Amino acid sequence: MSGNTFGRLFTVTTFGESHGPALGAVVDGCPPGLALSEADLQGDLDRRKPGTSRHTSQRREGDEVRILSGVFEGVTTGAPIGLLIENMDQRSKDYSKISQLFRPGHADYTYWQKYGTRDYRGGGRSSARETAVRVAAGGIARKYLQERLGIRIRGWLTQLGPIELALEDWDAVDTNPFFCGEPGRLPELEAYMDELRKSGDSVGAAVGVLARGVPPGLGEPVFDRLDADIAHALMSINAVRGVEIGAGFASAAQKGTEHRDEMTPEGFVSNNAGGTLGGISTGQDLVARMALKPTSSIRIPGRSVNIHGEPEEVVTTGRHDPCVGIRATPIAEAMLALVLMDHHLRHRGQNADVDSGTPIIPGHIED
Amino acid sequence: MSGNTFGRLFTVTTFGESHGPALGAVVDGCPPGLALSEADLQGDLDRRKPGTSRHTSQRREGDEVRILSGVFEGVTTGAPIGLLIENMDQRSKDYSKISQLFRPGHADYTYWQKYGTRDYRGGGRSSARETAVRVAAGGIARKYLQERLGIRIRGWLTQLGPIELALEDWDAVDTNPFFCGEPGRLPELEAYMDELRKSGDSVGAAVGVLARGVPPGLGEPVFDRLDADIAHALMSINAVRGVEIGAGFASAAQKGTEHRDEMTPEGFVSNNAGGTLGGISTGQDLVARMALKPTSSIRIPGRSVNIHGEPEEVVTTGRHDPCVGIRATPIAEAMLALVLMDHHLRHRGQNADVDSGTPIIPGHIED
Amino acid sequence: MSGNTFGRLFTVTTFGESHGPALGAVVDGCPPGLALSEADLQGDLDRRKPGTSRHTSQRREGDEVRILSGVFEGVTTGAPIGLLIENMDQRSKDYSKISQLFRPGHADYTYWQKYGTRDYRGGGRSSARETAVRVAAGGIARKYLQERLGIRIRGWLTQLGPIELALEDWDAVDTNPFFCGEPGRLPELEAYMDELRKSGDSVGAAVGVLARGVPPGLGEPVFDRLDADIAHALMSINAVRGVEIGAGFASAAQKGTEHRDEMTPEGFVSNNAGGTLGGISTGQDLVARMALKPTSSIRIPGRSVNIHGEPEEVVTTGRHDPCVGIRATPIAEAMLALVLMDHHLRHRGQNADVDSGTPIIPGHIED
Amino acid sequence: MSGNTFGRLFTVTTFGESHGPALGAVVDGCPPGLALSEADLQGDLDRRKPGTSRHTSQRREGDEVRILSGVFEGVTTGAPIGLLIENMDQRSKDYSKISQLFRPGHADYTYWQKYGTRDYRGGGRSSARETAVRVAAGGIARKYLQERLGIRIRGWLTQLGPIELALEDWDAVDTNPFFCGEPGRLPELEAYMDELRKSGDSVGAAVGVLARGVPPGLGEPVFDRLDADIAHALMSINAVRGVEIGAGFASAAQKGTEHRDEMTPEGFVSNNAGGTLGGISTGQDLVARMALKPTSSIRIPGRSVNIHGEPEEVVTTGRHDPCVGIRATPIAEAMLALVLMDHHLRHRGQNADVDSGTPIIPGHIED
Repeated sequence: MSGNTFGRLFTVTTFGESHGPALGAVVDGCPPGLALSEADLQGDLDRRKPGTSRHTSQRREGDEVRILSGVFEGVTTGAPIGLLIENMDQRSKDYSKISQLFRPGHADYTYWQKYGTRDYRGGGRSSARETAVRVAAGGIARKYLQERLGIRIRGWLTQLGPIELALEDWDAVDTNPFFCGEPGRLPELEAYMDELRKSGDSVGAAVGVLARGVPPGLGEPVFDRLDADIAHALMSINAVRGVEIGAGFASAAQKGTEHRDEMTPEGFVSNNAGGTLGGISTGQDLVARMALKPTSSIRIPGRSVNIHGEPEEVVTTGRHDPCVGIRATPIAEAMLALVLMDHHLRHRGQNADVDSGTPIIPGHIED
Repeated sequence: MSGNTFGRLFTVTTFGESHGPALGAVVDGCPPGLALSEADLQGDLDRRKPGTSRHTSQRREGDEVRILSGVFEGVTTGAPIGLLIENMDQRSKDYSKISQLFRPGHADYTYWQKYGTRDYRGGGRSSARETAVRVAAGGIARKYLQERLGIRIRGWLTQLGPIELALEDWDAVDTNPFFCGEPGRLPELEAYMDELRKSGDSVGAAVGVLARGVPPGLGEPVFDRLDADIAHALMSINAVRGVEIGAGFASAAQKGTEHRDEMTPEGFVSNNAGGTLGGISTGQDLVARMALKPTSSIRIPGRSVNIHGEPEEVVTTGRHDPCVGIRATPIAEAMLALVLMDHHLRHRGQNADVDSGTPIIPGHIED
Repeated sequence: MSGNTFGRLFTVTTFGESHGPALGAVVDGCPPGLALSEADLQGDLDRRKPGTSRHTSQRREGDEVRILSGVFEGVTTGAPIGLLIENMDQRSKDYSKISQLFRPGHADYTYWQKYGTRDYRGGGRSSARETAVRVAAGGIARKYLQERLGIRIRGWLTQLGPIELALEDWDAVDTNPFFCGEPGRLPELEAYMDELRKSGDSVGAAVGVLARGVPPGLGEPVFDRLDADIAHALMSINAVRGVEIGAGFASAAQKGTEHRDEMTPEGFVSNNAGGTLGGISTGQDLVARMALKPTSSIRIPGRSVNIHGEPEEVVTTGRHDPCVGIRATPIAEAMLALVLMDHHLRHRGQNADVDSGTPIIPGHIED
Repeated sequence: MSGNTFGRLFTVTTFGESHGPALGAVVDGCPPGLALSEADLQGDLDRRKPGTSRHTSQRREGDEVRILSGVFEGVTTGAPIGLLIENMDQRSKDYSKISQLFRPGHADYTYWQKYGTRDYRGGGRSSARETAVRVAAGGIARKYLQERLGIRIRGWLTQLGPIELALEDWDAVDTNPFFCGEPGRLPELEAYMDELRKSGDSVGAAVGVLARGVPPGLGEPVFDRLDADIAHALMSINAVRGVEIGAGFASAAQKGTEHRDEMTPEGFVSNNAGGTLGGISTGQDLVARMALKPTSSIRIPGRSVNIHGEPEEVVTTGRHDPCVGIRATPIAEAMLALVLMDHHLRHRGQNADVDSGTPIIPGHIED
């Protein structure tokens, strides 16, 4: 219940630093009887891991996860699942300079002020490397949701710096290192990134994420609304600065006649709500979007201060993603899976007496 | 810990429906020794309450709060504070039609699917009327933050439908029913709203909220980051569809050189981060913005279904806000106060051994 | 989640002081569809309330509870249930002396040291008067458990000072003010209490509590074991100094051959475990016992100190129970109901995929 | 927040089974700045580990703990601390018989009924082997409490089967395998155990635990009282069937004049309360006692059933403790340390505004 646990009934507690011996997670509350092995989790880990294209960090990590408990004879037992990923490529370099210095846009300054100390190697606990175990934990939720409830979760890149991207082709998303669903524009993305990398600068991005097949009824008003927990989950990802659901910020300029999603016996006629009403899932696609800031680690010099408050110029070298948003897609999917899993268990805990039965109207009209 | 409690150490648990006898809250974890009376909370309640201008709902509620416990001889004792607001103007009208019908854009359908039953009078638990006690509870946090830590929290309207609004004058915000900080444009807002009301339609809005004087160090990574909890808090407000911190969605198009807030001994040179780095407050202004959808209750007919799945036309009469965003400003302030209060207590619980002392660089450079 | 909330999915948050305007509770997580009215709760409140015999406090409280929310048309809606009991007989007496003085055996000293202030009227928050709303909240759980799961919960007095009491007759328990199940010994109890009252002294007691019909499977190891949560619940009742389950402290002297409850197709052959194994219910009767210390408020002078650390003699006058254990039976029942309700919801949240079906062996063999 | 996490601000989440690859824990909320290494934790692990005398299980485990995160340059950073203990001596034997059979007194039956599956190797998750990581986690709390607050925690054996033991000599406790503080009776204990082992039977025990130097003020009424959390903590230890604080069950027979601990400027004159009043520490020694049932794994045949409900005779062979209570002392100490640590952080989170200053009267009068 301190800050490193997510969820109420299906909980994930993570630990580990960028340059420590290992990252890990404990997944507690997983229902028994789910077939599970490391291979089920490795796919998403591989999608997130660095070093798979020239557009991401060149740190080489296998990100191989071990399941240490909670699975017996290939099936979950209801006991907590311990997950471990050893760090393999934490370079031992000279950190003497950075140890005294706050890099702008990083958590260096805030960790120092909060804790009076910090693990300065590669960002320590504040490194996005921590998200590897989120992806592993999310993979468990994802498998359950898919197998037991038929829920599919997918993310895609909606914006890379100035380039906005449509989702034309789901199947294309996983065939390119950008998680781009508009394959015709891949050369444009490649060119943009090559130029960016040469410049030494970085750029922001936005990622969309969607869950299809969510039954109506998930979400616990008034505070643990499904949308509020999604906002919490996505904003907890490193570098995220904004979250919206459905029509999102565009809602502010809409009229009621335009925004309200009318209902017919054949289903909802639109999805401005993004799949929740009153904080509870409607059965429509859950649709969220998040914006990520540009990587703060760039080699273009910037002004900063050291731990004594004296001015210093900062240049960040090392292996960094010029656009952290690119690898954020599997992380967003994992976090959405964790939210849905937790709410599924909470909902049936409180409401299993209700015969939910068939939804009154269909949430999603298959194409 | 079920869905109606917010916070970990400073917790607020609310109850009550739109047309029930009363709304209430229990505020647990308030430090002892804070001077507190009903009058301290009434000001914000009055700012939120309906019926104070022709642009909001004409329901007449005094929203007078009673403190039932936790205060002795004018001072908090450390015991839980019971708050009660009686409903006065819940009109007894004929709900026979609406009881069988789902209004589009409302929580009618989702409550029915989740719980198998619903209190259909005025939205029941899903009504924004519930936010009255959030404002009362937030008032306690606000008073503590102001008196003990010098933190000031302020909100303002940043967008009303198509009209975007700057913040020119803090002092003007509380002198008009729109919480508008650009007083020269009040006639434009008045005209827009009068026209809207005549049309029978509704419109969305956006609200900004800011906390000044927040010390560096608040926030509990990796999941209970300060920004993630702000996102949770704001997205838990009725009708909110998007939340952003600092540069927010604009971050996606920024370069690293543009976004990173350089640091000098005199302070940060910009605030794209919106006051948090790595999920921990920097000492700069905390700045967030939220978008609210247009009111779903409009008198323009729309298509819907009844509880048997049969199509019906819906017209919502009754007393409603044509733009719920207008009255949302005090609610956003209250939720931000609750987040900060909880994180202040959590931070000093875990980190009181650290002599935080003076921040190394100033967070806010006074104008 | 601060100290005044009990439970995880079925949560009870209480507020109120002995001499404040009211006591209250919020019950969150109650499943929808349960028929509920104030009358359902009043019975247990009446069993607990003071002034019903000469052997308890003469404070006159009707302890009438109002349901303020969460129930619509006589049925729970899934929304939080607000409960309120107004204090009627808080005598306005002169507290000037007691306000500066710590009564031995009371929480006066510890509240003062913890909070730096205290509501000294009648014990304030530390008064057992707070347990009235626990009984009301527990009544909701109890009704659900009885109606939906067939679980019956009963308590009885097992010891009054030196007098140990058997349970000969369930039906007799509620027909006397002692909750004594050995009716032939009532004259002995009456005489003992009359003598005690005359002496000005007080005495301890012990109470047993039992739940019959609990299905196997409730309890969440390793920390939230069912027995651990029962221990927490019972020890949280004012004046309780010990809790045991099944054979309890007698287990320390038992051999394994004696203690282990052998199993046969017809059921368990004994119940030394008290209904749990590994922290999970077996289906047998859940049996717990708690010991309560003697009331600290007695009119026999004692040594103490005032807030300046100076010695003072204390004599406690006013209306007090000479044996708080007498009225503790309905409180123990209520707390056990809250534990079972919470664990029922948690269990089915996590394990509803498992077809628990019929227990392999019967837990309880009906007499 | 599912069942495998203990605490609110200082939380411990454990995972791992008796015969899995490893046991582990995540300790979240540890204040930064505490010097910490594996060696600090190994001492208590060695006190608990099996195979150190002929009176405990002969399983050979080094119980060497690794710290995987949260410590940098020998000091805690405020980040979560990952702990890992690899299992070394999990014998691969033939479990085919036991896999279909429920051993009486074990959690076999309840795990099966709850989860529909179970890891039957050595008790799986229900094995007391899990307590190894509790001891490691408790060691962190213990070091903090000792170094920062001067709190010392000590346990001792108070009863071994029929033999009741006094505490004559603190220093003797750690010099014998029984944690016995009455060294003159060691031959009696040795003889009793040798006889017991020959008989094939097992026996219960009781353990006392004490914390000295606890400041007044810890505990969060009304539910998270310090005594209630101690009861929860101790009852969560495998095989514990009873918990008492201070005079405990003896309170039931005491008079008020006898039980109440009078106060003088020199301190409390007795400690029947066991160090808490109203659920808050008084500054006196915190004193608790717990009773443990006899080991259920004995080689004397007993009646049971298999998963089909058919009768079977059970004989438990393998390496088992004939008295689990013997090794329980370090576990009780660890759990008490976890409770105190959590309450210390919670208390200062909520009450740091109060200048607790010097206690008004001394809690403990040094001998």
